[in-house]
Amino acid sequence: MPISYIPVTANTSLAGELDHLINHKTKPLGSLGHLETLARQIGLIQQSTQPAITGPAIIVFAADHGVVAEGISAYPQDVTWQMVENFLANGAAINVFARQNNCALYIVDAGVKHAFGPRDGLLDRKQGPGTRNFAAEPAMTAQECASAMQAGMDLVDTLQGNVLGFGEMGIGNTTAAAALMHKLTGTPVAKCVGAGTGLSADGVLHKQRVIEAAVAKHAGAIEPLDVLATFGGFEIAMMAGAMLKAAERRMVLLIDGFIVSSALLVAARLQPAILDYCVFAHCSDENGHRQLLASLDARPLLQLDLRLGEGTGSALALPLLHAAVNFLDQMATFGSAQVSEKSAH
Amino acid sequence: MPISYIPVTANTSLAGELDHLINHKTKPLGSLGHLETLARQIGLIQQSTQPAITGPAIIVFAADHGVVAEGISAYPQDVTWQMVENFLANGAAINVFARQNNCALYIVDAGVKHAFGPRDGLLDRKQGPGTRNFAAEPAMTAQECASAMQAGMDLVDTLQGNVLGFGEMGIGNTTAAAALMHKLTGTPVAKCVGAGTGLSADGVLHKQRVIEAAVAKHAGAIEPLDVLATFGGFEIAMMAGAMLKAAERRMVLLIDGFIVSSALLVAARLQPAILDYCVFAHCSDENGHRQLLASLDARPLLQLDLRLGEGTGSALALPLLHAAVNFLDQMATFGSAQVSEKSAH
Repeated sequence: MPISYIPVTANTSLAGELDHLINHKTKPLGSLGHLETLARQIGLIQQSTQPAITGPAIIVFAADHGVVAEGISAYPQDVTWQMVENFLANGAAINVFARQNNCALYIVDAGVKHAFGPRDGLLDRKQGPGTRNFAAEPAMTAQECASAMQAGMDLVDTLQGNVLGFGEMGIGNTTAAAALMHKLTGTPVAKCVGAGTGLSADGVLHKQRVIEAAVAKHAGAIEPLDVLATFGGFEIAMMAGAMLKAAERRMVLLIDGFIVSSALLVAARLQPAILDYCVFAHCSDENGHRQLLASLDARPLLQLDLRLGEGTGSALALPLLHAAVNFLDQMATFGSAQVSEKSAH
Repeated sequence: MPISYIPVTANTSLAGELDHLINHKTKPLGSLGHLETLARQIGLIQQSTQPAITGPAIIVFAADHGVVAEGISAYPQDVTWQMVENFLANGAAINVFARQNNCALYIVDAGVKHAFGPRDGLLDRKQGPGTRNFAAEPAMTAQECASAMQAGMDLVDTLQGNVLGFGEMGIGNTTAAAALMHKLTGTPVAKCVGAGTGLSADGVLHKQRVIEAAVAKHAGAIEPLDVLATFGGFEIAMMAGAMLKAAERRMVLLIDGFIVSSALLVAARLQPAILDYCVFAHCSDENGHRQLLASLDARPLLQLDLRLGEGTGSALALPLLHAAVNFLDQMATFGSAQVSEKSAH
């Protein structure tokens, strides 16, 4: 990984300047809560006491997963490409929320098992017709995985904005994400699996057994890149690469739900300082997400029981990022507004 | 109270139609979580399967409180009028967030202890130069309280939009709100009081003692309107009236933090069905708010540790209301997008 960057929180002098600015705005100390933390973080990422959000974008990475052959999803595999068509037709939730919040939206075919042909609005970065079934063999070769990560990096190199949200679509990818979480955090598989798009309790148990058997089979996969290649997906690998590049470019990374967080987990094992650049959009209703966030020491902005993916949580959280930089930029200070400061009590 | 309206949730046929629409959008069942509940609620309030948000507005009601003579606030009383000036100069947090989210903002002098004179952008509904000190005598007479409520009703009668957020400014008003909460819910005073704008632990204890003594002194105040007159404020009474009228007009009521919730508590004791019209913007960091929300059976949209008031939580939550009606209006269905539905697992 030729990626390198410094932990932004290392800049204690700038942090002090930001705190001073935040604390002199016309409001009781700390009364904007999490928005104050967010303003400070975005200032540190941009290395500025006047941070601004320009050209926010969300990329939805779509791919298929061989492990669906094990019957681990409530929806058929065709839904992956059908939902890509829905994105291109502006009919999905992410289209609605990105449009509402003036957020650019990019749809990437990272490895969908479907021939779309050249299509307006679809970025063709197809790495293959879905991954292999990790219940039987590694999902990707090391080379395939590295190629997917590089494609993610290259894509982010073409972007202009300074806030990048991540989203995904891929029937079966909560299974891949749960396997990654288990391998990289040591959390028991039973606590990593959830209902995904809507499995029954029996379905969740089956999914757990499939992962447990695969983990036993591929016991030699230990290093983050090996784990990613063995259990991940093309969209997950591409997101991990895109995240590493986005942080190198000092973008704010807006992290969506369970699968996006699993891609970040891989990236953070490679470059821990990436977490300084991450804003966690929401805590998903998918079973393992709360614990995965805790393992990343992450505090999410929203708790709305979303479990849709597509980057919908990222799009919904974007107005809060605007609010954070806007209060820092636009609010009066006690001095400028001639408002009295706190008295003794 | 000449107000009457039906509980909107009584319309089970429309609720069924809304559920059908929500459940056939291209997403796993229930995967938009709280936004689905919100879309259903707004549809029921507007009695429509195609709800829309028009002309959203926030009204900030400002007033002073005689009880500040007891030393129950961390800021001097002058901050009330100074912050009103800050609102008029567009320098406060609520100005920033309302502007960002295209929300109209009205500033009302409900009873500030300051002569503003005629001012552009300030709605003069002054009921008096602040309330009396309820540690010594009732804050308002029954007539003053009724007049404040009526002014709130009249104001709402002039509005065009269908979403109305409530905000307030008034040094000392967490003390009034805590007294209302205690009297109307039976929660011990110690669990109703908090740091407000930033009291020390000793300051909070003193505030508790002031309220306990006043409650003992005015033991005869039992009925909601008596309690409101005795312990409330002009802004709280005006909000309660405004809320009752807004619900009668089938607006969505966007409820901010602790003080706004205390005004709603009074309104709900008068007309319990008002709660069907309320969207709770956030759970404040002010000590009593979580329990007050629980007593209203309310689930807030945001949990950002805000404790600023002014309607800032309402302004920040507004994009989520747009998201709720937008997904209902704009998302494709499984049928229209030709996406496969759930299979057996």
